[in-house]
Amino acid sequence: MTAKTTAFDAISALLGSRFTQSQSDRDIHGRSESHFAPMPPDAVAYPRSTEEVSAIAKICSGAGIPLIGWGTGTSLEGHALAPRGGVTVDFSQMDKVLDVAPEDMVASVQPGVTREALNTELRATGLFFPVDPGANASLGGMAATRASGTTAVRYGTMKTNVLGLEVVLADGRVIRTGTRAPKSSTGYDLTSLFIGSEGTLGLITELTVKLHGQPEAMRAAVCAFDNMEGAVNAVIATIQSGIPMARIEFVDSASAAYFNKSSGGDWPDAPHLMLEFHGSESGVAEQAARFGEIAEDFGAQGFRWAEKTEDRNALWAMRHNAYRAALTAYPGRRPITTDICVPISKLAEAVEETAEEIAASGIPGPIVGHVGDGNFHALLLPLEGDAQEWERAQALAANMAERALRLGGTVSGEHGIGMGKMKYMAREHGEGWAVMGAIKAALDPEGVMNPGKLLAGN
Amino acid sequence: MTAKTTAFDAISALLGSRFTQSQSDRDIHGRSESHFAPMPPDAVAYPRSTEEVSAIAKICSGAGIPLIGWGTGTSLEGHALAPRGGVTVDFSQMDKVLDVAPEDMVASVQPGVTREALNTELRATGLFFPVDPGANASLGGMAATRASGTTAVRYGTMKTNVLGLEVVLADGRVIRTGTRAPKSSTGYDLTSLFIGSEGTLGLITELTVKLHGQPEAMRAAVCAFDNMEGAVNAVIATIQSGIPMARIEFVDSASAAYFNKSSGGDWPDAPHLMLEFHGSESGVAEQAARFGEIAEDFGAQGFRWAEKTEDRNALWAMRHNAYRAALTAYPGRRPITTDICVPISKLAEAVEETAEEIAASGIPGPIVGHVGDGNFHALLLPLEGDAQEWERAQALAANMAERALRLGGTVSGEHGIGMGKMKYMAREHGEGWAVMGAIKAALDPEGVMNPGKLLAGN
Repeated sequence: MTAKTTAFDAISALLGSRFTQSQSDRDIHGRSESHFAPMPPDAVAYPRSTEEVSAIAKICSGAGIPLIGWGTGTSLEGHALAPRGGVTVDFSQMDKVLDVAPEDMVASVQPGVTREALNTELRATGLFFPVDPGANASLGGMAATRASGTTAVRYGTMKTNVLGLEVVLADGRVIRTGTRAPKSSTGYDLTSLFIGSEGTLGLITELTVKLHGQPEAMRAAVCAFDNMEGAVNAVIATIQSGIPMARIEFVDSASAAYFNKSSGGDWPDAPHLMLEFHGSESGVAEQAARFGEIAEDFGAQGFRWAEKTEDRNALWAMRHNAYRAALTAYPGRRPITTDICVPISKLAEAVEETAEEIAASGIPGPIVGHVGDGNFHALLLPLEGDAQEWERAQALAANMAERALRLGGTVSGEHGIGMGKMKYMAREHGEGWAVMGAIKAALDPEGVMNPGKLLAGN
Repeated sequence: MTAKTTAFDAISALLGSRFTQSQSDRDIHGRSESHFAPMPPDAVAYPRSTEEVSAIAKICSGAGIPLIGWGTGTSLEGHALAPRGGVTVDFSQMDKVLDVAPEDMVASVQPGVTREALNTELRATGLFFPVDPGANASLGGMAATRASGTTAVRYGTMKTNVLGLEVVLADGRVIRTGTRAPKSSTGYDLTSLFIGSEGTLGLITELTVKLHGQPEAMRAAVCAFDNMEGAVNAVIATIQSGIPMARIEFVDSASAAYFNKSSGGDWPDAPHLMLEFHGSESGVAEQAARFGEIAEDFGAQGFRWAEKTEDRNALWAMRHNAYRAALTAYPGRRPITTDICVPISKLAEAVEETAEEIAASGIPGPIVGHVGDGNFHALLLPLEGDAQEWERAQALAANMAERALRLGGTVSGEHGIGMGKMKYMAREHGEGWAVMGAIKAALDPEGVMNPGKLLAGN
């Protein structure tokens, strides 16, 4: 028997039918939502407890078998693919909300709880969990990739909304980071180290997250601009003015067109901003008025307001569906997602240069973005099977990354590195990438945790 | 010649008179503000550039000579003492504000810039840097210890207010972490790793910090309560209600008495809350009214308002001077600072148990705290030279730490570990402390960076 067979037998003995090498399970866990070719694992495990995850890690690291965490499979840079086989640890059966403490505005959850499930659970408490990457991702996956999304401009990212973690290390040791106290100054910030480590240092088996009070009042709106420049400059002025926007999203005219198509809307053929204001009744009114004045200066028109919950939900569902709607609107094309983030003062330059270059390429590339954070995405859509378009699209993506760095920004605002962006790591981090590698080697000397992602030589 | 002599000659050749082994320089850098016995370094270096710091690190790590960073020497757990000698790197000559970018609300500074110096520099921009630990500490030191203070309840700690760092590693390599973009998802969060690492992983040679808009309106106030319970429960209710307090500080009656003594005040002999509200004119009025209603429910009386800048400044100067005023008020006593932080719902229990135990001990122990964060300090004051009181005071401090952990909190909200709190690290972090040690060993295999602090076996 090989070491792998022995290891798999041991996991089988532990999990029974919750450990499988079936083709269908392997196939499902070998796919990603973006352009990467399928890379299935050798087996899939569905643990139900930290103890089981720890036992799996001990078995696999002892045998040098890769371990890949899996939440909902919605990451966009191939984070959860298995380029070297191994065992995918699917957290869908660790999906309990363990504890909600409204008096401390925190909740502890297992990693398989999705953001929507948590918010459903919180409904009666008057609290909510704000981080919203669009997809109904698992909180474990969101922590592992340092996710953010539409509300980060107001409420922060996973970095700012996780107080503590339980993590299973490569060798099966279980550590707990952080406490329920609002702050701490007791040594290295291990919580922050694991957030964004993309499963390369350990598997998150529990999270304690910060909750926020449901605002007394919420209003959403959409408005159109004559041109992209006006929309982006309105965002810059709004952020610089200090209006505490809850959401401020850019949508280009191409995206507006397929929003209409997918959701039966009637947005004009123009760039738009999608907005949300949170606060007291008077605070929301004040914010909306101040935003209105700024936006008008930059040529905004046709404001449409959504105050009823269902209207707001419909609006954000349309935004969240942007990626899938674009794929439907451009059939026969293979998506390359991009995700750059720049200082707010450089946003206009970054968006406009990108839009011009995409237009000149002849390849469809609608742009949407969490522009209040300086973060935007072009969805590049070269023709499936057209090697030349593919190369050109890759060059556009590389130019975007270079542009972000030139303007003092980062090659990923929120999607992460995975397999797709390792090529930019040396350029963004220099010697810091080697420091990441040294930390990786210290915590996972066998290199079993999510190999092939994020780190050089991983 | 010993390796040390050779190394010191090399640093002398580099820095000239900015490298000294004079007794007075060694003495100054061998003292701390709290109870630790003096532990002077062998020499003190005053670099003026990152290149010089890098060269010093290369020389020292090659010879196994300890390297200790020094900002203003205001840390409270012996962080900057030199228990194994070595070279203290004093950053007072790296004190330039390198760049202020109001359009991105960020500034880049050298580590020796103090928080007051930065805010003076920012005065004309309408922006400010909010983190305020009381002492006019250096920003490098504040980052190294993950400092916070009176305003963290609203603006966060150093963790949330630093976007990026330049760090010189033990072997002299220079890395840059973070960018000027508001968020990033490109690998391990090295910025957060170095913040709070207390000089054990590297020396911070540059910081990019977030700035905040000066609020349109600010109001401060003090109010008295019949008893501690009322004051603390008012804080809990205020935080739970979501009022965005800019400051909410607890001061017990003993502290109020020495505030009066040191600053000529006439506060009644009662526990107090010190408050500050930031926002628009109407927002501040609304917050103050809402707070007033809550506080009244818990027996607050005698509100005194400070709206003029000089009155507000005088009020916070009094608070910032609390530590020194207490030492003056209790002559012949040796201070033990404490610094626990608990979930907000446990604050009353934590403060009351602590106060009762201190009262029963007969040792003076005034309590103040950044209670909006669940963080408070008892300043234990055993008689100098009284071994029995010293032991009892140490037991009180240890009980506070145990209490914090029992209530789901942390043994340090903001002062850090240094030499003083290593004894609690295993209890708070369990196996996580070993993980910190593994990271330390990976980045500083010779163990030259601030030995004797934070880590087991360091």
